Amino acid sequence: MKDLIAFTRGVPPVETFPNQQLIECAERVISKRGDDILQYGSAAGYGPLREYLAQKYAVEVDRLVIGQGSLELLDLLCRVSLEAGDSVFVEQPTYDRPLVIFRRAQPDFRGFNLCDGQIDIEAVKTILENGTIPKYFYVIPDFQNPNGSVMGLDQRLVLIELAKKYRFLIIEDNPYRHLRYEGTALPSLFELSSDDVIHMSSFSKLLSPGLRIGFMILPKDLSKKMIDFANDTYICPSFLGQAVAVDFFEQGTLDQHIGKLINLYRSRLQALLSALDKHLKGYGEWVRPQGGFFVGLHLSDHIAPIDPELAAKYGLAFSDGRGFFLNGGSRFVRLPFCALTEDQNKQGIERLGEVISASNKD
Amino acid sequence: MKDLIAFTRGVPPVETFPNQQLIECAERVISKRGDDILQYGSAAGYGPLREYLAQKYAVEVDRLVIGQGSLELLDLLCRVSLEAGDSVFVEQPTYDRPLVIFRRAQPDFRGFNLCDGQIDIEAVKTILENGTIPKYFYVIPDFQNPNGSVMGLDQRLVLIELAKKYRFLIIEDNPYRHLRYEGTALPSLFELSSDDVIHMSSFSKLLSPGLRIGFMILPKDLSKKMIDFANDTYICPSFLGQAVAVDFFEQGTLDQHIGKLINLYRSRLQALLSALDKHLKGYGEWVRPQGGFFVGLHLSDHIAPIDPELAAKYGLAFSDGRGFFLNGGSRFVRLPFCALTEDQNKQGIERLGEVISASNKD
Repeated sequence: MKDLIAFTRGVPPVETFPNQQLIECAERVISKRGDDILQYGSAAGYGPLREYLAQKYAVEVDRLVIGQGSLELLDLLCRVSLEAGDSVFVEQPTYDRPLVIFRRAQPDFRGFNLCDGQIDIEAVKTILENGTIPKYFYVIPDFQNPNGSVMGLDQRLVLIELAKKYRFLIIEDNPYRHLRYEGTALPSLFELSSDDVIHMSSFSKLLSPGLRIGFMILPKDLSKKMIDFANDTYICPSFLGQAVAVDFFEQGTLDQHIGKLINLYRSRLQALLSALDKHLKGYGEWVRPQGGFFVGLHLSDHIAPIDPELAAKYGLAFSDGRGFFLNGGSRFVRLPFCALTEDQNKQGIERLGEVISASNKD
Repeated sequence: MKDLIAFTRGVPPVETFPNQQLIECAERVISKRGDDILQYGSAAGYGPLREYLAQKYAVEVDRLVIGQGSLELLDLLCRVSLEAGDSVFVEQPTYDRPLVIFRRAQPDFRGFNLCDGQIDIEAVKTILENGTIPKYFYVIPDFQNPNGSVMGLDQRLVLIELAKKYRFLIIEDNPYRHLRYEGTALPSLFELSSDDVIHMSSFSKLLSPGLRIGFMILPKDLSKKMIDFANDTYICPSFLGQAVAVDFFEQGTLDQHIGKLINLYRSRLQALLSALDKHLKGYGEWVRPQGGFFVGLHLSDHIAPIDPELAAKYGLAFSDGRGFFLNGGSRFVRLPFCALTEDQNKQGIERLGEVISASNKD
C-alpha cells in the first residue's frame, strides 16, 4: 500500500506555525496583561484585538465580534437572525461547513452555479425579480473554497447593486484573501460597500487554526444581538489565544510571515497545476487560482465519479464533492494543496489520473 | 458617593491568578507540543487534557467533552437532545445562566424550592408520580449557585433512585466542589452513580475564567452527538488555554494553589457571615456555606425587595434576584464574597442593612 496522500481538509502545514515567536508573545501578554486575559471579559472578544481589527478595517469597534473561529460566529448569526423559511443564497459549489450551519435554521436555500468561477448572475436576477429575496447571500469572493476562483470586479459591483436594490446582506467569507501568489487583489465586497456586507474572516490560515480566532464585522444592530447571545451562551471567548495573536500582530511581523507562506504555497500550487495539466487533460476542468488553498476539479460528464475505495487503493483520500453542493457535486473534487509537499501534489495528481483511467476503461 | 461594592457576578479576584506559573506553562507547551496546539484538532477538546480528566474521574475518555466553558457545553447538550415541551427540572433558586440556555429549547420547566438548602423532594415525587418525567434534572449540589447550600447525602441518594426509577438524567453542575473551607465533602452525584448523572464543571473558579475551560462527562451516545455537533459548529475549541491548564496540573501544584484560594476565601466568607449576623438579623434567612462563592439571602416577606436605585445611592449593586427563579425571587439577594476583601464584605453588608432599614421605616 502506498503512503496516503490526503486531499481532504484545507489545513495549513504545521511547519508554518511561528512557534518560537508565539512563545515570546505568550510570555509578554501574560506578564503585561494577565489580569485581563485570565479574567472574564467581553463576549465580543479580547479588547486589544478588537481595537486592532477595528483600526485595520476602519470600522467602529462595536461592529466587530471575535469568536472561536468564524464558523461559530456564523452559527451565532444564524441563531439570532435566521428563521425557518428565510431565503439564503449560496454559490455552488461552496464551503461545506456553512451549509451545515445554515441548514439548522431550515432556510429556503438557493444555490447558484459558478461558471468559470463566476456566479450565474442572470439566474440570481431572475429569482430576485420573481420575488425571492434572500436574507443573506453567502459568498467567498477570493480564492473560493472549494473552487479556487476569484469573483470578478463587475460581479462584485452587480452583487452590491442587487443587495442595495433588494435589501439583502451579503456575507463575504474571506480567510484566503491575503494569500495571493500572483496577480493583483480586487477590492473586497466589504471595501466596496461596508453597509451591505457582513465580512467574516479568521487567522486560521494566516497564523494558526488551533488558536481558533475568527471575526465578523456586521451592522451594529446585528453585532449587538450576536454579542448578547454569545454572552448568554459562553460569557466570553477564550482570551489567551486572542491576546497572543494581537501581540504577534503588534510586533509588525505578520506581513513577513505571510510572505513566507506565499512563497511556500506558490510552489505547491504550481506543482499541482503542472501535474493537472500533465495527467488530467481531457478528464475535466479546473480554474487556475492565483492564491488560496484549493483547486476545484470538475470532472467531465463522461467521467465516472471518483470511487473512494478505489482511490484508497491508490493511496488517495478526498472529501465527498457532494458536500459542497446543495444538489449534485458527485463529479466535483476539491484539491487542497498547501499542506502537501510539491512532490505529494505531483504524485497525488498522477495517482488521480490513474484512478480515473482505471475506472473509465470501458 | 461611596465607592461601589458590587455583589453582582461570581468572579474570582485577579490576585489569585498564577500568572508567573502560567507563563512557564505556555512556554513549555508551545515548545513541546506546538504542532498539536496550533493545528486543528478534535472537537472534544485538547487530547492531553481529556486524558488527564478521564483519569481523574476514572471514566473512559470518549465520555468527556471539553469546551469554551461549561455553559457552552450545556448549550450544545440542549441543541442535540432537548426538544420543545421536554421537561426540565431545576432547583429554585438556581444559577441564572443555565435557565436562559434551557429556555431556548422551550422546555416544560419545573422549579423545586430549596428549603434550608434542600430540594422539596416530596413535590418532586408527586410530579413524577403524576407522569411528568424530566429529560434532565439540573442541580448544583455543592455550594449551590446562588444559594450556597450543599445537598445532603440522603437527598443525593433519593435523587439517584428517582433517576433510575423514572429514567431521567441528573445534570450535576459542580464548579465549586473543591472550594471547601470547612467540614467534609460528600460524594458527588456522579461518584454515587455515574450512569445516571451528567457531570459538568470548569476551571474558571480554580484556575482562571478567561482561559474558558469547561468540561462535561456524559453517557457515550450523548457525548458523541455533542462532539459531532461541536465539530460542525466550531471544528475544535481553542487549544492554547487547555494546553496551558493541563501543563499546570501536571506540575502537581494545583492542590497547593487551591489551598491558597481556600485560605483567602474562607476569611472573606467569615467576614460576610459575621456582618450578616450583625446587621441583617430579623430581615431574612441565609444558609451558612462551608465553601463556594455565594451566600443566598432570602429576605422575609415583610421586608420590601431591594430597590436597585436606593442600593446604588449606598454604593451597592446586586444581580436581580428574579433571574435565579422561574417565578418570584424579588426578595432573593445573591451575595458573592470571593472577589471582595474582608472589609468590603463587612461594609457591604452594613450598607445593605442601612438600605433595608431605610426602605422599611414605616
